[in-house]
Amino acid sequence: MKKSLDQTINDLVIANRILAHENIVDAYGHVSARHPDRPDRFLLSRSRSPELVEPGDIMEFTLDGHAVNDDKRAPYLERFIHGGIYEKRPDLNSVVHSHAEGVLPFAITETPLIPVLHSASEIGLTIPVWDIAEKFGYTSLLVTDASQGRDLATKFGQNSVVLMRGHGFAAGGQTLLQTLRMSVALPKNARVYLEAMRLGPVKGLSAGELEARKSVMGVAENSATLRAWEYWACRCGCGHLLPGGGPKAGA
Amino acid sequence: MKKSLDQTINDLVIANRILAHENIVDAYGHVSARHPDRPDRFLLSRSRSPELVEPGDIMEFTLDGHAVNDDKRAPYLERFIHGGIYEKRPDLNSVVHSHAEGVLPFAITETPLIPVLHSASEIGLTIPVWDIAEKFGYTSLLVTDASQGRDLATKFGQNSVVLMRGHGFAAGGQTLLQTLRMSVALPKNARVYLEAMRLGPVKGLSAGELEARKSVMGVAENSATLRAWEYWACRCGCGHLLPGGGPKAGA
Amino acid sequence: MKKSLDQTINDLVIANRILAHENIVDAYGHVSARHPDRPDRFLLSRSRSPELVEPGDIMEFTLDGHAVNDDKRAPYLERFIHGGIYEKRPDLNSVVHSHAEGVLPFAITETPLIPVLHSASEIGLTIPVWDIAEKFGYTSLLVTDASQGRDLATKFGQNSVVLMRGHGFAAGGQTLLQTLRMSVALPKNARVYLEAMRLGPVKGLSAGELEARKSVMGVAENSATLRAWEYWACRCGCGHLLPGGGPKAGA
Amino acid sequence: MKKSLDQTINDLVIANRILAHENIVDAYGHVSARHPDRPDRFLLSRSRSPELVEPGDIMEFTLDGHAVNDDKRAPYLERFIHGGIYEKRPDLNSVVHSHAEGVLPFAITETPLIPVLHSASEIGLTIPVWDIAEKFGYTSLLVTDASQGRDLATKFGQNSVVLMRGHGFAAGGQTLLQTLRMSVALPKNARVYLEAMRLGPVKGLSAGELEARKSVMGVAENSATLRAWEYWACRCGCGHLLPGGGPKAGA
Repeated sequence: MKKSLDQTINDLVIANRILAHENIVDAYGHVSARHPDRPDRFLLSRSRSPELVEPGDIMEFTLDGHAVNDDKRAPYLERFIHGGIYEKRPDLNSVVHSHAEGVLPFAITETPLIPVLHSASEIGLTIPVWDIAEKFGYTSLLVTDASQGRDLATKFGQNSVVLMRGHGFAAGGQTLLQTLRMSVALPKNARVYLEAMRLGPVKGLSAGELEARKSVMGVAENSATLRAWEYWACRCGCGHLLPGGGPKAGA
Repeated sequence: MKKSLDQTINDLVIANRILAHENIVDAYGHVSARHPDRPDRFLLSRSRSPELVEPGDIMEFTLDGHAVNDDKRAPYLERFIHGGIYEKRPDLNSVVHSHAEGVLPFAITETPLIPVLHSASEIGLTIPVWDIAEKFGYTSLLVTDASQGRDLATKFGQNSVVLMRGHGFAAGGQTLLQTLRMSVALPKNARVYLEAMRLGPVKGLSAGELEARKSVMGVAENSATLRAWEYWACRCGCGHLLPGGGPKAGA
Repeated sequence: MKKSLDQTINDLVIANRILAHENIVDAYGHVSARHPDRPDRFLLSRSRSPELVEPGDIMEFTLDGHAVNDDKRAPYLERFIHGGIYEKRPDLNSVVHSHAEGVLPFAITETPLIPVLHSASEIGLTIPVWDIAEKFGYTSLLVTDASQGRDLATKFGQNSVVLMRGHGFAAGGQTLLQTLRMSVALPKNARVYLEAMRLGPVKGLSAGELEARKSVMGVAENSATLRAWEYWACRCGCGHLLPGGGPKAGA
Repeated sequence: MKKSLDQTINDLVIANRILAHENIVDAYGHVSARHPDRPDRFLLSRSRSPELVEPGDIMEFTLDGHAVNDDKRAPYLERFIHGGIYEKRPDLNSVVHSHAEGVLPFAITETPLIPVLHSASEIGLTIPVWDIAEKFGYTSLLVTDASQGRDLATKFGQNSVVLMRGHGFAAGGQTLLQTLRMSVALPKNARVYLEAMRLGPVKGLSAGELEARKSVMGVAENSATLRAWEYWACRCGCGHLLPGGGPKAGA
């Protein structure tokens, strides 16, 4: 069920605060949503820490990163991460960029990160690492123009997550909720995998299991997937922004 | 001393919130209690994050996982973990299912988890790992029907804890408090054991020590065991739900 | 400057709450002070979680662990840890017993814990590990009578800290503040030491440095050492219990 | 744009509370600013835990560590760290001293700490370790006079950070905000580097990348760098001290 622009902005604000509260972003990092009515545009806060984002902060961008509606406010430098992925992947409707600590060891070494936890199945079997230096040489490591965003998106390819060398990760999902799930599960999966390696050979999720989980964790929202949204929203103080004003006692 | 249904439900709500506050469960994971008057039934929240559970959320299930009293609310998909263990083990009256991070390295490798901390003695000397793939092939890793719950319970056997490959653990105790103790102690015990392995051979608890501790930590509630319940309840904001309205200054 | 009984009890209550807030104790673990007027007695809470201790909870014990003044309230089972150390070491006036996670890897292996951080110098060069099983065989690992407390105190000897196998540690200081400092620094020192071992040979503090630090961190309270007390007390919500009602703006 | 003395003191108070809230300092550790009008003086709190510092606590010191204006309040013992660096490095205007846990493994071993995260680029390619024992023998490890401060500053040299053996680190920046950024990024960078070493060879930042980042993260404050200041200030309860009374909804 497609959401309205207002509902999308409302959800995006909640998502910003959830990611901050769950330690996926801090002063930096951001989350966007594709415009529900114009697939050639996306919604993203002005340059502001996610924890502080409010509805009025949300700006609208073309896929090559230009603000529309003559909006002169300072945008995030790295909005091109989002635009690049939306352009490359019409099937995706939300993108997160984060520097979450748990994944970073895998972003500065050659050891591939793999899914080992059921809750992380959506990150996919293959998680490429994009090194900005390969094509762009000495940079600030920030993705600051459309060509860099497109190069990142090419490495992202048909996967769900791409690590960025010395920097963090980008994740793209079919829904905002799916993207949040991956963003929260990814660092936990990385930490557990790293610890487990000390104990001996690690049993990861199989391709068949990832496929089987798609039917459970897929796009459709149900009582199990919305449970996480309700939980995260309440924890970060956004319970009152949920439909109906937040959770009530079971009737 | 057997508790009334009302008291059991009240305690179960507190237990939900304790487990959330102590980071044993998050949006997912759950805790149940066997019905105090009908051993062929158990009590478990509707599909809701434990931190938010209230008395009205508690549903009643048969051991094969059917809601009774024509209750149409969405239940947890994995209620079969609970039913399977209650069916297999008439001596147990409470079950927790959790994805606590500390135990997960032992759930994806072949290294057996053992008790090394006195506070974890109730987890037992043997902690089997159940891999749903062995019998059921490619699944979502979730325990979604009674046959899977029974297979898990068979692996659980006469132990107190079973790890679930790529997923988490289930623990069963004679009382709700005992199950909480194990659920909180298990991840700490796993983290300490993992760290200690780096230092050389590890001295675990002996069978004789586990036996000796049963007399101290057994079923009967006393000032030492209730101290943990009071502490946890106060920390998660449920002090006012304790008998007498919570802790008072020592007289 | 000797403190009055009232002041000692007030400080002991603050110390209980500090240790809880700093994650050195949880539902279990405890802190005591020698009676300021009767060196053959010590002060310790009734059986209660340190976070909840109030002045009225403090009981008075003989060094062999008997409550005085006909006090019938349930005491901590392990009060013998405190009595044993006070009996063996007339120079010490405060004891902490804790299960803090950071030290536990060193309590279940043969690798000696050493001081590597300046803030941990008071823990001393030698930190013995006491294994209750050596003399008492299969036990609950708890120190539940005076003979066990005395055996622990013998292993403690002229040191400042003793680890307890599979259980935790006991620390004894000349003042309550010194004991708190050691209790907070010990787990941090253990974690850092454990991590550093991965990087190669570790440079610990020398005997000469420990000696030099005694003149700085010694018994006398000064602006530097009281700074920690003020900080910890404010963090755990006890600022109003400080002399003068807590910190004021600098004049 | 040079700041006034009042603004500098206001910012310094906020910086104290930020560092406490972000776990870079606790009861100990401190942050200073060079006097905006008198480069031969610096501003630093009296001996007080950073979390509790208020404007009236800020004292003024000469570079050799003497309080001016006949200020008799107890200063930090280690103010000589600050004076030594300001004297040696006229280009720097802010200094932090911290015992943050993440860096300590590199302060007690021979393995050099290197920058591996883009957010840590300002710490520089070379991070020397100063061992007070080399020149001063058996000490308390504290930097308690001007000659020790100058020796530390000599090891600091033209770098941005120096580790202090068994103790912590000192960092110096061109602005208060730059010094905060380094202080927060340094322990995260150290933790990630330490974890990554387990996975195989680590890819650090290159000299060319450090250079490229200077243009982005340099001295000038802009919407991206001020975002961190706003975020940290709000998190530690100092939002109301920001210009204009803190963040407002985007207009």
